Amino acid sequence: MAEGELVGQRVVRIDSRAKATGEARYTADLTLPRMLHAKVLRSPHAHARILNIDTSKAERLPGVKAVVTGKDAAGVKWGVFRYTRDQELLPAEKVRYVGEDVAAVAALDEETALEALSLIDVEYDVLPAVFDPLEAMQEGAPQIHDHVENNVNIHVPIEVGDVDRAFQEAYLVREDRFSDTEYTYCQTEPYAVLVNYDSNGNLEIWTPNASPHTKAKALSNLLKMPLAKVKVRKISTGGAFGGRSDIFPGEFIAALLAIKAGRPVKMVYTREESFTSVRQAHSMVVDLKTGVTEDGRFLANEMKVVLDGGAYSSTGPIAVSVPFLVWEETYRLHNVRFNGYRVFTNKPVRGMYRCHGRSFMGGLGMQLDMIAEELSIDPAEIRLRNALRTGETQVTGSRIISCGLTEAIEKATETSGWKEKRGKLPYSRGIGMGASGMMVGFPMGIRGGSAALLKFNEDGGCTLISGVVDNGQGNESMVVQIAADVLGMKMEDINLVSSDSEITPLDQGAYSQASTFVSGNAARGAAVDAREQILNIASDMLDATPGELDLKDGQVFVKHRPEWNVWLGKVIRKALLDNTPVVGRGSYMPKVDLRREWVSNPKGQHAGTFSFGAVVAEVEVDTETGQVRVTNVTGAHDCGFAINPMAVEGQLEGSVASGGVGASLLEEHSWDGGQMLNATMLEYKVPLSVDMPQITPIIVETVDPEGPFGAKEAGLAGSMNMFQAVGNAIYDALGVWIKEFPITPDKVLQALEEKDPES
Amino acid sequence: MAEGELVGQRVVRIDSRAKATGEARYTADLTLPRMLHAKVLRSPHAHARILNIDTSKAERLPGVKAVVTGKDAAGVKWGVFRYTRDQELLPAEKVRYVGEDVAAVAALDEETALEALSLIDVEYDVLPAVFDPLEAMQEGAPQIHDHVENNVNIHVPIEVGDVDRAFQEAYLVREDRFSDTEYTYCQTEPYAVLVNYDSNGNLEIWTPNASPHTKAKALSNLLKMPLAKVKVRKISTGGAFGGRSDIFPGEFIAALLAIKAGRPVKMVYTREESFTSVRQAHSMVVDLKTGVTEDGRFLANEMKVVLDGGAYSSTGPIAVSVPFLVWEETYRLHNVRFNGYRVFTNKPVRGMYRCHGRSFMGGLGMQLDMIAEELSIDPAEIRLRNALRTGETQVTGSRIISCGLTEAIEKATETSGWKEKRGKLPYSRGIGMGASGMMVGFPMGIRGGSAALLKFNEDGGCTLISGVVDNGQGNESMVVQIAADVLGMKMEDINLVSSDSEITPLDQGAYSQASTFVSGNAARGAAVDAREQILNIASDMLDATPGELDLKDGQVFVKHRPEWNVWLGKVIRKALLDNTPVVGRGSYMPKVDLRREWVSNPKGQHAGTFSFGAVVAEVEVDTETGQVRVTNVTGAHDCGFAINPMAVEGQLEGSVASGGVGASLLEEHSWDGGQMLNATMLEYKVPLSVDMPQITPIIVETVDPEGPFGAKEAGLAGSMNMFQAVGNAIYDALGVWIKEFPITPDKVLQALEEKDPES
Repeated sequence: MAEGELVGQRVVRIDSRAKATGEARYTADLTLPRMLHAKVLRSPHAHARILNIDTSKAERLPGVKAVVTGKDAAGVKWGVFRYTRDQELLPAEKVRYVGEDVAAVAALDEETALEALSLIDVEYDVLPAVFDPLEAMQEGAPQIHDHVENNVNIHVPIEVGDVDRAFQEAYLVREDRFSDTEYTYCQTEPYAVLVNYDSNGNLEIWTPNASPHTKAKALSNLLKMPLAKVKVRKISTGGAFGGRSDIFPGEFIAALLAIKAGRPVKMVYTREESFTSVRQAHSMVVDLKTGVTEDGRFLANEMKVVLDGGAYSSTGPIAVSVPFLVWEETYRLHNVRFNGYRVFTNKPVRGMYRCHGRSFMGGLGMQLDMIAEELSIDPAEIRLRNALRTGETQVTGSRIISCGLTEAIEKATETSGWKEKRGKLPYSRGIGMGASGMMVGFPMGIRGGSAALLKFNEDGGCTLISGVVDNGQGNESMVVQIAADVLGMKMEDINLVSSDSEITPLDQGAYSQASTFVSGNAARGAAVDAREQILNIASDMLDATPGELDLKDGQVFVKHRPEWNVWLGKVIRKALLDNTPVVGRGSYMPKVDLRREWVSNPKGQHAGTFSFGAVVAEVEVDTETGQVRVTNVTGAHDCGFAINPMAVEGQLEGSVASGGVGASLLEEHSWDGGQMLNATMLEYKVPLSVDMPQITPIIVETVDPEGPFGAKEAGLAGSMNMFQAVGNAIYDALGVWIKEFPITPDKVLQALEEKDPES
Repeated sequence: MAEGELVGQRVVRIDSRAKATGEARYTADLTLPRMLHAKVLRSPHAHARILNIDTSKAERLPGVKAVVTGKDAAGVKWGVFRYTRDQELLPAEKVRYVGEDVAAVAALDEETALEALSLIDVEYDVLPAVFDPLEAMQEGAPQIHDHVENNVNIHVPIEVGDVDRAFQEAYLVREDRFSDTEYTYCQTEPYAVLVNYDSNGNLEIWTPNASPHTKAKALSNLLKMPLAKVKVRKISTGGAFGGRSDIFPGEFIAALLAIKAGRPVKMVYTREESFTSVRQAHSMVVDLKTGVTEDGRFLANEMKVVLDGGAYSSTGPIAVSVPFLVWEETYRLHNVRFNGYRVFTNKPVRGMYRCHGRSFMGGLGMQLDMIAEELSIDPAEIRLRNALRTGETQVTGSRIISCGLTEAIEKATETSGWKEKRGKLPYSRGIGMGASGMMVGFPMGIRGGSAALLKFNEDGGCTLISGVVDNGQGNESMVVQIAADVLGMKMEDINLVSSDSEITPLDQGAYSQASTFVSGNAARGAAVDAREQILNIASDMLDATPGELDLKDGQVFVKHRPEWNVWLGKVIRKALLDNTPVVGRGSYMPKVDLRREWVSNPKGQHAGTFSFGAVVAEVEVDTETGQVRVTNVTGAHDCGFAINPMAVEGQLEGSVASGGVGASLLEEHSWDGGQMLNATMLEYKVPLSVDMPQITPIIVETVDPEGPFGAKEAGLAGSMNMFQAVGNAIYDALGVWIKEFPITPDKVLQALEEKDPES
């Protein structure tokens, strides 16, 4: 198979069988000799000072091998930026949310650990708490962190152009407030961690994660250990959605226990703990003011966003400007003013979720529909008029090197029968659309790149060593498919070693939609390098120049005389005997502006490239019960090039569910103060198969000049556009705008009631 | 620390703590989810046809998940050469020794597996057996393998020069017969194996082993799986001594069971099984005829050796010419005739043991002492007269590129007080010496080399990926010490990934005394390559040429202005940002004649280099009981250069015990026909600490031109010379030559009785 023949094929993913049969191993499945089981004592208070913790009774319980409290944590704090390190992962003095870690026990079994927890006496001084971010910003609200006034964790201001003048010049100005609730990831796998610490000071960690190198670096900082001693191991991860990217109290506490006990420690969270004590998604309140020309082109955009950050910074500071990015990555903007605030509340910590709430922010495309209606422009048309195109530069300076937004909008409308349906369906049925752009890779300094190695076996097979991480997306298959294509091999002849911080070269992990673009490029580079080495060696054996040779199905052959050939294994053996073993090296660093900063300097090239997509959704509303059902979704996504179209479609389908149907219609947290009321899979509603629409995926290919074989990403293809498509479809069905997500039956009924009190 | 400063230091080995605390994990310690436990039904007969195996009752036993017999093994056969593949690792038709594998069961626990074994009915047709190799060679002896006449497995003839004429010209000709018994390795760890087989067809194996790549290759052949699917994992190995190098029935059977059951399978041998059903060492009968000049120089050497190979070939064919090699690697020979025979008997399979019985063959230096006595030449002097020297070529064509034999003999005699003691100690006390040469690395085709990778972390630490194998020698520490030296780093800042056939590049493993020479050279190459990359990148940062720079303690600095410097971590980060991550590559292939063959063409350069040593031993004999006690050993060894002198001394001390004191005085198998009688650690005598002499190690350094920093090997330093030193010392003590090893009290008493029947 020549280069470019295997990529683009619908191939079975290399992890399919293990996942389907239940054979894949997860952290909770693992056992090590002398392993202990750990449990965590959690705060029952949303905000309280810890006056004293008496662990003496717990320590005396037979079977208990180690007890740790904040005193063991040495006061180190975690936060994604140096200036936002505010979370003691095991706090010594104060708890700031219900479910926060207070003490932990490692014992011979879980029952003993739980019994020991009941023997720990904690004296608290309960403090007043605040749960609403807008209230938390008020003067006099309880102060959650010292030195953080009005509980404002991060404020990101962005201003380009002359916004006020542009609003004056606008033909039409609209102002709306939108909001959503927090979500939880609901990965199939509850959070779990296993830590092994040896007498040479090596720390091994197994935990579901999106980036072993990032976890290793964070733990290296927190535990003050060199990176060479911190080894985050590969283990199957049962879903991530951004919720396995951060560093969590769990791995830190398990490490403290393992070090103290001198034995391996495993900790498996309950589902409730997985809801409250790992991470949640930010909720947002967005005030959106938009000014357009008469023909619907953006003149001025102003946005104020308040994010509920929960008790600590975590990775939250990155989230603050995301609402702005969603706009500038999609549309041609000129004059913009953005003020993003992340505010502390006494609730669980909020971190990444599907690129920091991008799904919901894409939902602000509802205001665009409102404007379109006022201007009597078709919603598809208004999007096309503002859509970014290849070669254009976003308002804060990122150049678009490939763009299929226009094509995606056109194909989605065409395929869905948009023109025949929009405004023409019977009452209670509606159709709506959404469109969006999406960064692929962002400035992460040295952590934004990837490197890969590829070593050949004497029988012509090979091992690819890549830091690529697969949380379910199919990233492992992706790098194997790319390498196999370059090397003219079958995928099963390439063995993959991945996701181990000790073994693999630095790789950013499954962040920022960059796995295919970054890790895929590195894998391709390693394969290209190995291929060159092979052709060079074979050129001696075949008496031809490397340029005259090709490699396919384990044979190196002269292109114009294929009967002149040599078995790949023979080439590898010659290389070994000649003391030049074939080891390919590849690396890729996205071309971003490294001076760009999330908070202090949001200017310059922000991503290696951008992907684009459009979704058309049809809904059916039961006006008796208020229940909204999404019946059909047509999703067109510019993934650059589909390495494996089946995987791209799978990603599109998955993102229509999680972050799409679920987040826009079903998922929300219920609270009594700081106490989450629905932290179970029975009561927290995620879409089931019966809730899913018929999905028609459309792949738009723009063949990105930087991506491997032109590929970009497909991770958030559906969810980025589902909020707006669903919100707009409900308007099309009922004639009401519902601006608070999720759009649950009560909100539908209330909106109908307000529209027509007589109904 | 500049290059050459850390090597040569006495450093603590990186595995010391884990071994000392019991924290190191061995195969038997491991547990996998859904793991089964396996047991093997073994032949009670030394030679029998298998007529029928009925496993139906065993299969019906609750808890039994898989049963395998020879029918599942598809008739594939193992043997180290293509033409010696004669062992069905699970035989279908015939058993050839007591303890051979007949059927195996995997069940939920060991008890169930054992119960299932008792339910398997095997019908045998018992055949006549033969246990003595000389009898087995006679006409009419039971034929063990079809098509193998007179049970001669391998015959290696070597002839150089005009031997008959040289004997005619000799001033003195001696003929003697020497013999030894079989030994068993008695590794602290019994044999164990764990196999995991997944639905993608990946086979993972954990088992104590000396070469994961060799195991993987053999299993790939036997199971007809590509190498990329066979993954031999790193696991601590509790001693090897050659007994972990081969492929064994255990891993093959465990693999069959795991594949059949679709679950992981662990099998832990009893000590008795570890004695009889893994491998044993060859026993030999040697007829030695030697002709010398008047001044004791070799003129003609003729040797006929019969090795008892047990039931199958295994790695045995390599053993046949080893007795010859010992001579040609030590002394200047001219006219030689060698006939080596390996003969099948109905006894357990014999394989490598301390380089295939090299220890015992070194013992033939007793004849040299006899000759010396007849010619009135001092034993040290006769050795010096015949000793090879740097620049000379061995009789079959291997050039000596460094040689410290003369210096070793001189230092050992000087330090031990040889001149004052030899022939002058009171009756029952004696002193004797031995000397020998030793190949370092031998032609193994592509498997004779090693490659290594070295990747840097952003904090200036690094990970070395090397196939090096450590069975207790300290090889892991060796490669880390070498890399640390080159990179001016502390050893603890280098993380080692090793001994995994999937992750590490091809490496020969801990064979043929080549780890330091081959794997050490590869590690050095990777470090040198990484260092060059670092200096190149830093040269931009420091505005100096790479040649003007040095790297030490995590700083790159201008040699003549050390205050101009940059932190290594900063250089690594720059490399990452510049998309040129620092990954060093190194490889080494020993310069041997690849046309040389063990059996068919024993001519040409046989090893990359050769090491040399001499031992002087003092004994004290209790003439009442016949017990011999070695009181002092002075061992001088030319290891080229001692990377870690403490490790070299440790190797010397270890080899004085195992293969030395043990094999020459204590260790032997007792048989009742084919049934081993002393297959327990209580009855098989290995030297305990009370049996050990005072040891004075002397390191001779010749700084080999090929070895890393001049290093060669130190693996068999003591044992190679202990037989001859002990045998000669007993003669010095008692005036009797005992030519049958081990020299147990009964043989001493018998010899004294024969010498002086009146005593």
